[in-house]
Amino acid sequence: MKELEFIKYIKGKFRYRKPVVKGIGDDCAVVSRGKGTYGLFTADMLIEGIHFKKNTPPFFIGRKAMCVNISDIAAMGAKPEYALISVGASRKKGISYLKGISDGALAAAKKFNVSVIGGDTNASPVTVINVMMTGSVEKKNLITRSGARKGDCLFVTGVLGEGNKRHLTFTPRLREAGILARNFRISAMIDLSDGLSMDLNRLASESRVGARVYRSLIPVREYSERSIENAIYAGEDFELLFAASPRESRKIIKSISGKNGLNASLIGEVTGKSGGVRLVKEDGSSEELKPRGYSHF
Amino acid sequence: MKELEFIKYIKGKFRYRKPVVKGIGDDCAVVSRGKGTYGLFTADMLIEGIHFKKNTPPFFIGRKAMCVNISDIAAMGAKPEYALISVGASRKKGISYLKGISDGALAAAKKFNVSVIGGDTNASPVTVINVMMTGSVEKKNLITRSGARKGDCLFVTGVLGEGNKRHLTFTPRLREAGILARNFRISAMIDLSDGLSMDLNRLASESRVGARVYRSLIPVREYSERSIENAIYAGEDFELLFAASPRESRKIIKSISGKNGLNASLIGEVTGKSGGVRLVKEDGSSEELKPRGYSHF
Repeated sequence: MKELEFIKYIKGKFRYRKPVVKGIGDDCAVVSRGKGTYGLFTADMLIEGIHFKKNTPPFFIGRKAMCVNISDIAAMGAKPEYALISVGASRKKGISYLKGISDGALAAAKKFNVSVIGGDTNASPVTVINVMMTGSVEKKNLITRSGARKGDCLFVTGVLGEGNKRHLTFTPRLREAGILARNFRISAMIDLSDGLSMDLNRLASESRVGARVYRSLIPVREYSERSIENAIYAGEDFELLFAASPRESRKIIKSISGKNGLNASLIGEVTGKSGGVRLVKEDGSSEELKPRGYSHF
Repeated sequence: MKELEFIKYIKGKFRYRKPVVKGIGDDCAVVSRGKGTYGLFTADMLIEGIHFKKNTPPFFIGRKAMCVNISDIAAMGAKPEYALISVGASRKKGISYLKGISDGALAAAKKFNVSVIGGDTNASPVTVINVMMTGSVEKKNLITRSGARKGDCLFVTGVLGEGNKRHLTFTPRLREAGILARNFRISAMIDLSDGLSMDLNRLASESRVGARVYRSLIPVREYSERSIENAIYAGEDFELLFAASPRESRKIIKSISGKNGLNASLIGEVTGKSGGVRLVKEDGSSEELKPRGYSHF
């Protein structure tokens, strides 16, 4: 939990002033642009040996760096606009390696309509890439981590627990986030970068609520103890976790079951803060769901 | 020159559309915000062993990462607004190391009125920090690398060749850039991050001009062959190199010699492209000034 300790330290250092609406502590920082629009800013760094392997093809490094940022923008109901890419790589790797990274990043940028407008290249003993991305959203459509209310239903998109297979090839849920932001009142949303247990705790903490998640409702490809464990604790699924009022949830569930419907599952509910974050087992008993997902520091 | 080859490759991949005014190839990317204002974006990555040492105190790592970005914003005549900081560091270094980096970054941010609104921390085998910064400038005050014209005079701020002593403690020339942007018509400007020879060649290339710089006019602390060589080829001075028409240059020179005047020196002139970039020696002979400064890749 060192990262959370550090984030707490950093948050204590800041008092945001207008037009900054949200600083550290959400998927993106949010700044008012006036005229009904928010501007969003996010940055993610990927490092060899941590987020990809020494022999990961450079195309997939670039692609992933772009997609994790798109996922952060999507998680706030917004659309990406611009990106800046900073890359560090060993001189020995040569220009073809840098081109591979940029080809992967640009392919993802093109697919999701992001304009890459700048960057920086450096020599580095290990490969490291940082993508910074801006986005925009109509003020009424902004979704934060902090709006979940007691009684809300909790949903996730897609299937969980496959991050280790898909972390280089996943599709950021920009389309799904757009559908949610435009058609429903979503109280809170976060992308699952560090595992359901970690990210649900983050959402609950920012919203000052508790939550109950039902093991039997967690969507996995094939049921097994292992796959459920991965779905709860393993990171890099980059699916969306979101909350909505019971009334909105009925509409969402209708959309899930409809044709061309949303690929999402109801997994639990929001409770009062004193209830904590709990995992309800198949036999009806429950245990505290500790934030022991993937910590990046 | 691998970095330049890569930048050429990357530039060939892009066609910018409105509202993007400048993409890769200047100190910052420039986006029109309408209403007479440009938004600027820049990012710089610093890596252990390349831009700072293993034992560099974390405070100075954070400070430098912030200041090199402020220097990029200043070089376009703009003011910084927001910053996002991504840090990677070894788990062994502990939280106090991360706090040190953020304290240094925040001290510089406070001094130069930058609002840090987000970031990311990661485990990494070597320390790496990326700062992304936004800025803004009135459209009429934007200064690019590409506006130098034949006959312009060339100036630099401060004293050159001391990057190895000052690269952790330098003051970005935000104040000087602001004075220049508001009071004079500056045709082109760049900050000296990679040495006068490299950055003058960049400015000349982007402006499609040549240049002549006089060895005897290059400002150094104490004259010696060594100090002149450093002033021309060593990087990380973070002073400003700028061009202005003869008419504006007369006003600038008056301001330099006045009380509370600008700390800047005339070092040469802009020529036609066919003249190339040349260094005029003390005996009046001249040689090509090759871009062999500090290459980051």
